[in-house]
Amino acid sequence: MTKGSQIERIEKDPLGPVSIPVDAYYGPQTARGIANFPISGIRISHFPNLIKALAYVKMAAARANAALGDLDKQKADIICQVCEEIATGMHLGEFPLDVFQGGAGTSTNMNINEVIANRGLEIMGLPRGRYDQLHPNNDVNFAQSTNDVYPTAIRLAILLSRGALQRALEQLASELEAKAENFSGVIKLGRTQLQDAVPMTLGQEFQAFATTLREDVARLGEIASFFHEINLGGTAIGTGINTNPDYQAAAVAELRAITGLPIVSAGNLIEACWDTGAFVLFSGMLKRTATKLSKICNDLRLLSSGPRGGLNEINLPALQPGSSIMPGKVNPVVPEVVNQVAFQIIGYDLTITLASEAGQLQLNVMEPVIAYNILHSLELLTNAVDVLRTKCVVGITANAETCRRHLEASTAVATALTPAIGYERAAELAKQVLSSGKTIREVLAEQPDLSEDLIAQTADPHLLTRPTRSRLAS
Amino acid sequence: MTKGSQIERIEKDPLGPVSIPVDAYYGPQTARGIANFPISGIRISHFPNLIKALAYVKMAAARANAALGDLDKQKADIICQVCEEIATGMHLGEFPLDVFQGGAGTSTNMNINEVIANRGLEIMGLPRGRYDQLHPNNDVNFAQSTNDVYPTAIRLAILLSRGALQRALEQLASELEAKAENFSGVIKLGRTQLQDAVPMTLGQEFQAFATTLREDVARLGEIASFFHEINLGGTAIGTGINTNPDYQAAAVAELRAITGLPIVSAGNLIEACWDTGAFVLFSGMLKRTATKLSKICNDLRLLSSGPRGGLNEINLPALQPGSSIMPGKVNPVVPEVVNQVAFQIIGYDLTITLASEAGQLQLNVMEPVIAYNILHSLELLTNAVDVLRTKCVVGITANAETCRRHLEASTAVATALTPAIGYERAAELAKQVLSSGKTIREVLAEQPDLSEDLIAQTADPHLLTRPTRSRLAS
Amino acid sequence: MTKGSQIERIEKDPLGPVSIPVDAYYGPQTARGIANFPISGIRISHFPNLIKALAYVKMAAARANAALGDLDKQKADIICQVCEEIATGMHLGEFPLDVFQGGAGTSTNMNINEVIANRGLEIMGLPRGRYDQLHPNNDVNFAQSTNDVYPTAIRLAILLSRGALQRALEQLASELEAKAENFSGVIKLGRTQLQDAVPMTLGQEFQAFATTLREDVARLGEIASFFHEINLGGTAIGTGINTNPDYQAAAVAELRAITGLPIVSAGNLIEACWDTGAFVLFSGMLKRTATKLSKICNDLRLLSSGPRGGLNEINLPALQPGSSIMPGKVNPVVPEVVNQVAFQIIGYDLTITLASEAGQLQLNVMEPVIAYNILHSLELLTNAVDVLRTKCVVGITANAETCRRHLEASTAVATALTPAIGYERAAELAKQVLSSGKTIREVLAEQPDLSEDLIAQTADPHLLTRPTRSRLAS
Amino acid sequence: MTKGSQIERIEKDPLGPVSIPVDAYYGPQTARGIANFPISGIRISHFPNLIKALAYVKMAAARANAALGDLDKQKADIICQVCEEIATGMHLGEFPLDVFQGGAGTSTNMNINEVIANRGLEIMGLPRGRYDQLHPNNDVNFAQSTNDVYPTAIRLAILLSRGALQRALEQLASELEAKAENFSGVIKLGRTQLQDAVPMTLGQEFQAFATTLREDVARLGEIASFFHEINLGGTAIGTGINTNPDYQAAAVAELRAITGLPIVSAGNLIEACWDTGAFVLFSGMLKRTATKLSKICNDLRLLSSGPRGGLNEINLPALQPGSSIMPGKVNPVVPEVVNQVAFQIIGYDLTITLASEAGQLQLNVMEPVIAYNILHSLELLTNAVDVLRTKCVVGITANAETCRRHLEASTAVATALTPAIGYERAAELAKQVLSSGKTIREVLAEQPDLSEDLIAQTADPHLLTRPTRSRLAS
Repeated sequence: MTKGSQIERIEKDPLGPVSIPVDAYYGPQTARGIANFPISGIRISHFPNLIKALAYVKMAAARANAALGDLDKQKADIICQVCEEIATGMHLGEFPLDVFQGGAGTSTNMNINEVIANRGLEIMGLPRGRYDQLHPNNDVNFAQSTNDVYPTAIRLAILLSRGALQRALEQLASELEAKAENFSGVIKLGRTQLQDAVPMTLGQEFQAFATTLREDVARLGEIASFFHEINLGGTAIGTGINTNPDYQAAAVAELRAITGLPIVSAGNLIEACWDTGAFVLFSGMLKRTATKLSKICNDLRLLSSGPRGGLNEINLPALQPGSSIMPGKVNPVVPEVVNQVAFQIIGYDLTITLASEAGQLQLNVMEPVIAYNILHSLELLTNAVDVLRTKCVVGITANAETCRRHLEASTAVATALTPAIGYERAAELAKQVLSSGKTIREVLAEQPDLSEDLIAQTADPHLLTRPTRSRLAS
Repeated sequence: MTKGSQIERIEKDPLGPVSIPVDAYYGPQTARGIANFPISGIRISHFPNLIKALAYVKMAAARANAALGDLDKQKADIICQVCEEIATGMHLGEFPLDVFQGGAGTSTNMNINEVIANRGLEIMGLPRGRYDQLHPNNDVNFAQSTNDVYPTAIRLAILLSRGALQRALEQLASELEAKAENFSGVIKLGRTQLQDAVPMTLGQEFQAFATTLREDVARLGEIASFFHEINLGGTAIGTGINTNPDYQAAAVAELRAITGLPIVSAGNLIEACWDTGAFVLFSGMLKRTATKLSKICNDLRLLSSGPRGGLNEINLPALQPGSSIMPGKVNPVVPEVVNQVAFQIIGYDLTITLASEAGQLQLNVMEPVIAYNILHSLELLTNAVDVLRTKCVVGITANAETCRRHLEASTAVATALTPAIGYERAAELAKQVLSSGKTIREVLAEQPDLSEDLIAQTADPHLLTRPTRSRLAS
Repeated sequence: MTKGSQIERIEKDPLGPVSIPVDAYYGPQTARGIANFPISGIRISHFPNLIKALAYVKMAAARANAALGDLDKQKADIICQVCEEIATGMHLGEFPLDVFQGGAGTSTNMNINEVIANRGLEIMGLPRGRYDQLHPNNDVNFAQSTNDVYPTAIRLAILLSRGALQRALEQLASELEAKAENFSGVIKLGRTQLQDAVPMTLGQEFQAFATTLREDVARLGEIASFFHEINLGGTAIGTGINTNPDYQAAAVAELRAITGLPIVSAGNLIEACWDTGAFVLFSGMLKRTATKLSKICNDLRLLSSGPRGGLNEINLPALQPGSSIMPGKVNPVVPEVVNQVAFQIIGYDLTITLASEAGQLQLNVMEPVIAYNILHSLELLTNAVDVLRTKCVVGITANAETCRRHLEASTAVATALTPAIGYERAAELAKQVLSSGKTIREVLAEQPDLSEDLIAQTADPHLLTRPTRSRLAS
Repeated sequence: MTKGSQIERIEKDPLGPVSIPVDAYYGPQTARGIANFPISGIRISHFPNLIKALAYVKMAAARANAALGDLDKQKADIICQVCEEIATGMHLGEFPLDVFQGGAGTSTNMNINEVIANRGLEIMGLPRGRYDQLHPNNDVNFAQSTNDVYPTAIRLAILLSRGALQRALEQLASELEAKAENFSGVIKLGRTQLQDAVPMTLGQEFQAFATTLREDVARLGEIASFFHEINLGGTAIGTGINTNPDYQAAAVAELRAITGLPIVSAGNLIEACWDTGAFVLFSGMLKRTATKLSKICNDLRLLSSGPRGGLNEINLPALQPGSSIMPGKVNPVVPEVVNQVAFQIIGYDLTITLASEAGQLQLNVMEPVIAYNILHSLELLTNAVDVLRTKCVVGITANAETCRRHLEASTAVATALTPAIGYERAAELAKQVLSSGKTIREVLAEQPDLSEDLIAQTADPHLLTRPTRSRLAS
């Protein structure tokens, strides 16, 4: 099947015989899982880091078991050899299970158990299915349960994936900062509630985008660190049943060594078996990042609106003709796609929350859908951030003239007068500006009692983009 | 307590003695409910239509029981008399239970049973607590269970409340239509993706708002009609245990008569006992209306942005000073509050969905939180729509000159050239407009091969606000 | 690329030259879209009904344009010929765009325009790119805009997909009814709030599942019918710019003829251009169905829990070994995967809502993410319902003895005594049962004043599964 | 109005005259806000910590301004005196604004400005409205904008409220730990996927509840700490316009001193003006806690189900009669209400997310709805946790016999045999147990080849509640 083969072999599991593509490494339980879950058309191999994480866990367990003398050294070596192959991405096609599956990940765990066993048997020169020589459960899964392997692997897969997102955000923040630097001399109107407010620079506006994303790089790291706490060694329901009392510490140490990550054991393995709080919190953090990106993209679309009937303060690079009917139209397609990704991540966060709430007693059986949503969120978000940087932000230019024109036509500098002339009179002058169509400077010039000095001070709006009160009030 | 009294009386229920404010009509089970659920500070009496609906149900049951000879006629009369008092809003203070409560509404059902019993006893000249003469369970709740009374009452409360929302939407749509009529001559730039697109009138823009809301008036009515199907008579779990075989039809008929609504019995009372699908669908519909309102308010805020650094195509009425520091600033506060209401309704819809999914076996125990969220959604939405109409839409004025200026500065009419000169050449001309700063008319005048006639046809953008191709292509 | 080719051809669009796989039918704008949106790895061709719907729309437009004399008859024939090929699924590989895209569907619309043009040119014996002979915009997209083509196509794709879901639900309901029939004699304990309540039959329990799903078959049909209203002919922003005044009616009539669906034109095309309310409502309906399925699956998991430490009233078929470590364990994997699908649909509904709310002015640019989420919801839900029926419900068996044992050990029949002996005394007897460990029958036998007849009547709990009061009260 | 007065006084603001209850401290802008936002019936005074937080901010600003010589010392003293009154809760009735309001909190800011001014004037012996002596804007709001005051006050209000939640959770965790201690000897069946799994103790089960909540006490503290970063001093849009360059540091230092909290200034005040990421993350954390509580309550309801037709492993205290029709029924009403609170918090989190995403340019105008949802979440959650502890957990008792019976009837110990006899044979034996109705011990006794020793080791399931493999495998 995965290799296009029509020839099948028959194997047995406790429920009876199962037909399997003759050259597949996977075995009967995987075949049952394929048949039982024809749901979404999206395979677990869509997430190579999940498969890699599973391989690392199996390797850690085999090493620990061998070191404790509980697993034949030669078997352990074979298992580790196959895990290394899998970790490099060699056997992705052998993981065809749907991302939607019942069984709390048992099918996925058995998938890798079977692949390791059969590929191991092949290395040993034995035919597939000779499980008496290398058994998916008794050897590969030795001292393990899906209850500890699967939650550990999901956490690990997230840890393996989140760096790309952080790097992408970091690069985007740097690009925004470069723009902020370029735009530091562009004076413009700041707006609150879409209404003219007070002066600022376009550089300040872009720097704020950079700042807000840099915060999230840090937050993502902090919150991802909770995934370092794993339940490997807890086996079924976290009591550690069927494990050597020294196994848990050994397996965790091996996994730490293999991955180079500061992995530690959860303090309470029974709680860690069913607890999905770290997923909820991390997904909440992804949602926060998505929300910020969506806000930034809304701003970019607004600032580039027009060009003639909009704000038109910045230009986004033209990437594709904007319309099948309107010639010359160019649209902000990249911010638009980022908005949509953000909406998807927010929806995914909800699915993760629902799945988390549905845990019962000693296990959360909904972890496969949590894994799918969180790993796809990471993928979507990373890609969206890269596209936003490379295809949009990097090419943004400023329309400095338009920026200045908006500012000068507005009453933005009136705020700066209040320390000197009070809120009511400043409001009165602002009203005159808007009703008369004059500029604020023209209206000020008509005020006999206002000092030249005071008026002069409103003439340089750059001065109004930082604390200024005492100067004008004096 | 509800009457400020510090003096307490003692009553017993099957769990033992309970202290109750001496002059309260409610009794021991209500008092337990008050003590057990000090959660939100929001009382069920916040929703008078819920109390009224409960009173109607109790009245219908009493009438049916009396007619079947199962309840003493005199008791039934007293019960109905108290229900009428309650339905007019007389005893709202007697319903102090928190809207958050466990027990699937049992506390609420016992609240009204107790109020009816004790107020009935008072009418009969007897002291509170003489339940041997009029019993909350044996008489008032006769042939009833919270399982059928409470879901019926929620449905009824929604039916009693949704008319106000429909009327509010209808009035808002009418006001928008009046504006559309006023603005039918205001030619302006239509925008897609915040970019200049093709011409339209401001009247068309406002008519679309009206149309979209009128659709929802109809949809809300259709979907609310599913609440006409009730499970009264099903008693516990819907099997109709402890009811006269003729009771269900009689009680439903009485409720139909009392309310004047086309109420019918659900076909399967066991399903109807736990099914909350009608709430999910109706809430989904409220969410749709909220989403539309939010979109309209986003548009109003955008179209009125500026005044100098924004679109400024319309003016919203000034309702309050817009800033504590920026003199003269006026903000679109009403659309802003409607946006927030919309976000709340969307959140409430999620809570309702979660509560619906959590039903188990023969009952959905989460109905109190469904009732709260759906009734509060109706209240918020109705108020928001009224405020939007009376404090915002009614006072909107158009800046026709700005509208025209945006249009004329744009390349919007270039689309109309494509049937005659093709997409590529039209795109080329549009590009020239934008790069040169000339108007499209100026650029067209420079094209020696374009006929006067063709150019003239683009001069009246009003013609471009309806199907036009054949004219220009000829 | 789509055909594995490494050789590229160069074409130009208004933004300049673009490299395209030499034998691809798609053209420069599709190629730009591929490059601009490397987001999710899920292609629009994942949804064949969306591609088919686009082909139908293009065919309807070509026919209408030809009939009005606005498009060369021969060109129209070629266009229609290619559309028929596409509709059969022939060119799915030519639609490699990501489901996430900016541009409000322009890339997707240009994708099919370009495929039709180049495949048409091939049929005409001309090389790809000879758009002077058959132009993606000027001919294939004649009288069309993405603004009307794309929303129409999404609606149509949903209409083409929803039948499968309705059929799947119908079949599941029938299977549940067959079970209800089989289980009609299995008397058991009804439960509210997970506590013992009153008697019912297992048949009643399964019939309620069937009833609730049949309702949704009807509701889905009613709500899908709102998609029959389309905005084809509105072109850009819905004003119908660049269309023959007779085009809209003609195009809609052609689409009605091609699809056999009762398609009609929206009353207000400007509103219809941006309105996404029908998506929100339909998604809300899918969410309702998902919520019901999740509740049913929760019940199936609960009723089959154990086998020794749970309710164990029914048996689900064993589909796969339930654990990698616990021998003999069999899990309810199908209900579990359906739960997860339900959570996904609820998350998707949120994404659709967010996208809907984000529409601005004359267009909702977020429609691609709406299309993805709604079409994937339909796919997931249809598959999940089929799996639930074929792999789970069809094989469910009852443990009638366990059902009866639970009932008889409980106080469920005590409710039936209240009409005769009152609520307080019945509560007292129930308390005795629970504290003594005796059965209710034993406790009743100890009551000297209760008539034989009354006690006998509680002996047949089957009688208590329907209205019974008058009999016992007499 | 707030004092029942019908007599009105007239004051003017920049938009004209406004009528105000004669003895109200609040002034014209508050009165406008009351009239403009009749939305939810829930007043901002519902959250005393929000009013207290505003008072602290005003006090800090006044002190800083006075210290810098920018505000008359005597005026500052009066302002501080009134703020102290407000902080003690003295004038709650003067804050009648609806929690739903447009204007980004301007009405709320002006509400306290006006209350301080008028109450200050009263202290000074002057009539309300003598703003020339103490002005709401020019004096009370000196060097401030709603843009910095309001976001700061919300953060502060959360910081003032979150301690109660943490304490409540801590106490609940302690109570659960006490139960865990009590139940440490109660051996029982652990369950995964609602199916019998392996042995554990009831103490382990309750300890896991405690552990998971203790984690959240820590997490809530960490994530709340991000609120220590405030934007006070940024004034309008964060540029610090109209402030003394030394004001910001001084004001933040004063607020730190007043509150005793480690408050610091945000690094980028322009970003901090519109950024709502901390709210999204904290709300996501509240959602996580809610999700955990809901899971725990689901478990409590499941474990206490029955009593005769359910698991019945624990007893929850009986708080109120469970049914209006079913005598003797007692329901898990407290866990049920906690579930509903959890659903509400999840819905609120969505509203907060939507509001956060809707920020535009230099401000997030949706902060009032964020404030409402986050403060109400804290209130609901704190109350729910207290009720769960005091009315439920504290009174839970174990049915040790039932726990043991479930375990012994199951195949739970079969897992422990696999290291010795392999997965397949253990599965075979488990199958025999379930089909024969014998206990696992009986079936084991029939296996001639299994050693006494091995069989004996399965006899003490307590040993199977911790790592055990090597012992049995030996």
